[in-house]
Amino acid sequence: MDIEQFRKAGYQAIDRICDYYSTLQQRPVVPPVQPGYLLRSLPDRPPEAGEDFDVIADDYQKLIVPGLTHWQHPSFFAYFPTACTFEGMLGDLYASSTCNPGFNWSSSPACTELEMMMMDWSARLLGLSDHFLNSSGVGGGVLQTTSSDSALVATVAARSRYMRTHPGTKMEELVMYVTSQTHSLGVKASLVLGLECRILDVRAEDEFGLQGETLKVALEEDIAKGKHPFFLIGTVGTTSSGAIDRLEEVGEVLQHYPSIWLHVDAAWAGVTLACPEYRKTAQLEQINKYATSFGTNFHKWGLVNFDAALLWVKSRKDLTDALDVTPEFLRTKQSDAGAVIDYRNWHLGLGRRFRSVKVWFVLRSYGVEGFQKYIRECIELNDYFASLVRSSTNFSLIAAPSFALTVFRLIPHNAFPGVTLSEDLLNDINRSMYARIGARHDILLTQTILNGTFCIRFAVGAARTRKEHLDQAWSLIQEEAGSTIEEWAEKLAAGKN
Amino acid sequence: MDIEQFRKAGYQAIDRICDYYSTLQQRPVVPPVQPGYLLRSLPDRPPEAGEDFDVIADDYQKLIVPGLTHWQHPSFFAYFPTACTFEGMLGDLYASSTCNPGFNWSSSPACTELEMMMMDWSARLLGLSDHFLNSSGVGGGVLQTTSSDSALVATVAARSRYMRTHPGTKMEELVMYVTSQTHSLGVKASLVLGLECRILDVRAEDEFGLQGETLKVALEEDIAKGKHPFFLIGTVGTTSSGAIDRLEEVGEVLQHYPSIWLHVDAAWAGVTLACPEYRKTAQLEQINKYATSFGTNFHKWGLVNFDAALLWVKSRKDLTDALDVTPEFLRTKQSDAGAVIDYRNWHLGLGRRFRSVKVWFVLRSYGVEGFQKYIRECIELNDYFASLVRSSTNFSLIAAPSFALTVFRLIPHNAFPGVTLSEDLLNDINRSMYARIGARHDILLTQTILNGTFCIRFAVGAARTRKEHLDQAWSLIQEEAGSTIEEWAEKLAAGKN
Repeated sequence: MDIEQFRKAGYQAIDRICDYYSTLQQRPVVPPVQPGYLLRSLPDRPPEAGEDFDVIADDYQKLIVPGLTHWQHPSFFAYFPTACTFEGMLGDLYASSTCNPGFNWSSSPACTELEMMMMDWSARLLGLSDHFLNSSGVGGGVLQTTSSDSALVATVAARSRYMRTHPGTKMEELVMYVTSQTHSLGVKASLVLGLECRILDVRAEDEFGLQGETLKVALEEDIAKGKHPFFLIGTVGTTSSGAIDRLEEVGEVLQHYPSIWLHVDAAWAGVTLACPEYRKTAQLEQINKYATSFGTNFHKWGLVNFDAALLWVKSRKDLTDALDVTPEFLRTKQSDAGAVIDYRNWHLGLGRRFRSVKVWFVLRSYGVEGFQKYIRECIELNDYFASLVRSSTNFSLIAAPSFALTVFRLIPHNAFPGVTLSEDLLNDINRSMYARIGARHDILLTQTILNGTFCIRFAVGAARTRKEHLDQAWSLIQEEAGSTIEEWAEKLAAGKN
Repeated sequence: MDIEQFRKAGYQAIDRICDYYSTLQQRPVVPPVQPGYLLRSLPDRPPEAGEDFDVIADDYQKLIVPGLTHWQHPSFFAYFPTACTFEGMLGDLYASSTCNPGFNWSSSPACTELEMMMMDWSARLLGLSDHFLNSSGVGGGVLQTTSSDSALVATVAARSRYMRTHPGTKMEELVMYVTSQTHSLGVKASLVLGLECRILDVRAEDEFGLQGETLKVALEEDIAKGKHPFFLIGTVGTTSSGAIDRLEEVGEVLQHYPSIWLHVDAAWAGVTLACPEYRKTAQLEQINKYATSFGTNFHKWGLVNFDAALLWVKSRKDLTDALDVTPEFLRTKQSDAGAVIDYRNWHLGLGRRFRSVKVWFVLRSYGVEGFQKYIRECIELNDYFASLVRSSTNFSLIAAPSFALTVFRLIPHNAFPGVTLSEDLLNDINRSMYARIGARHDILLTQTILNGTFCIRFAVGAARTRKEHLDQAWSLIQEEAGSTIEEWAEKLAAGKN
């Protein structure tokens, strides 16, 4: 493809993306395809001769788009949102057009310096302390691929620091901590590294947040057994329910264990820190006071297209001590002089995408005000949805709504006279309802289990979601609840006979 | 930014990318900027109010482009090439426009199925055995971010498999193997995982490839010491010199140690397997026979924009046994039924970009023939460059040219009468010459050290490199060699006086 062919195909791509967003609302959220739909439509090997790009671009529309789950659809309420702004796309496009692996300063000075600055901009947007800034020269920020990478990098740095300061410790004696509500990234990091991970309990009455006392008891038990605690993941905004660990209590306990690294994972909810009114709930003060590292994803709810996971550390040396491998072919006069950051020593791999462009585009195009406005509007929409749940006699919230996430379940108090609604029965009924909703293509929600309670998550965040979509969603949920109740009324009646 | 504003900004981006490629040759390869150039040009925090995108897009041209190292410049011969095709950009753009994290089938069916098929297409393109195909149902392929990730995933899977089959083994007893020529990804994987890594010697007379005997002796020594060897990285096309480990010998040794996982890293040179005439040199037969996993990067020399690291394994169960963490909110009926691949269990993180689109676009637009043609042309250009080095009395090749890589140094036999050209002196002279070349902005090369010998790497692969650029490069290198000789003649004369 030559330059003029690219111009034509590029314009076409831009137009088709415009069309996609103009018609998004008319599409199903979930594609009506079965496993194997695409595998069966494609030849099993690449063509011998090159094909015309027009045909390929048409095939993308014909074969791929109908098999996409539309995360940007206004009726997508599953998982957490994945940001997808036009500014983000343009940032990705410019970055992709020059393909710099950006592993050290000289491999592309702009890549390193823009990332340094965007991490500082973002830190200031969120109100993080100066010690997390790249300009501090001591701490600093880096873009990772996902929160899993951020957590894994933090775990590796924590283990490396612990082993350096506690020589002779065996890896088998190390133990890291998460809660039952921590994202699976915690357990995955322990699997990847082959380290023991202790899962701490949290209680519904604490809104599923970790208490300091639980941690304290666990640490004392483990140390008494000869184990070496080295790492804890605290969460602000868990995936299941948006729970927030009690970082003040946790931080106070950890004051007595200065070798333990506290990583605060706020993958989803961290962006609320951009709004002063949410900083107390999202525990900004405690993050600044206690966190050894802190991560949030702009690619979830922060308007920057996937992938853009922001990770800050109090001490950049902890990263480079753990990850620096500098062979001759990567030595440069600038990094030998220590004048610049070599980001390859701040993450697991070597090469990296030029992701800071899209962060720059988004933060400038929205400004602090636009970013805040977006977060506030999503939270208001979720408050509205939660009010619908609250006003219903058949549904209950399982935890207080957290920012833009509501977790609820069906409790049909008066639907089955004479039947005791046991927890098991309620779980079965909710599974039935979820199966019905999951069979639909006009909405997407996800399930979760909170301390044994099966429930349904409703996450607001797609840019085109408006009040009308919540009303539609609520009416649809009520409809499926009605059918579920009928289904179970029959089942329960049959069971009695 | 609304849809029509995006159309305008998108057209502008496409036009500016066209301009970039029209004028690329007139730009310096290396930007004439000093550390801090951009940091000093940007405000230290994001703007309060949003800005007009025209201003932002202009700033990208004004501030970012002049600070880029132009990896696509026809006079870029450093590191390895980073592919950047228009087809790749378009694939990235479409993928970025819908932002699917694609972690399991139902999160976007098209993402999983296209990746499954593109890995099979690529396996067939390269001549890999059927046991690496996704359609085998046993082995399979997955896109990773970089070769570092591929190697790390392989190491984790190997360790996990070893620990399962050798219960009671301590992590401190494990040992993995690389050679002194393996990419730093090997040592980095061992650092990340906290495992011992033994670096095996290779010899210049073996063209820096690992011999079976070296491995055998090391394994026997380590086992005698009570260590547990579990993993070896073999390389086809090392970074320093394009060396190729002797996989037949290595494979034969490993037949006696079936618990050891052989990962073959062909990050750069793997794409040569697309051409039947290079399959013997690149050891296709041995890869198919002995490799437990195999990785190559299409984002280096394989025409697909960064990032696209292809990893195949003989047994997908080795990956999922090591990496599967399935919390409730990630359970789906399709994966519970085992009908589809959940790629999140085949890599370190959870979310992932829709990278297979760009692979699809490239393989269809180029076809097998176009892909082969590209590889062949680069190798021919490198052969031409190597012939220039060979024809010179002042320069020597350090190893036989490997595919599209030449490693050479200056040996000015008759320049300094009466002076013995010791290895140390030759290294110093070559460092001087490299410093001179490195100070220029119209070319980029990288250095390396091969068993103590400082030398210069010359890697061909940018899509716009033609014979004339090699002639220019050669003339420039000769010019700097001349100045270096003058400089050293003075130094040596001064030293004698």
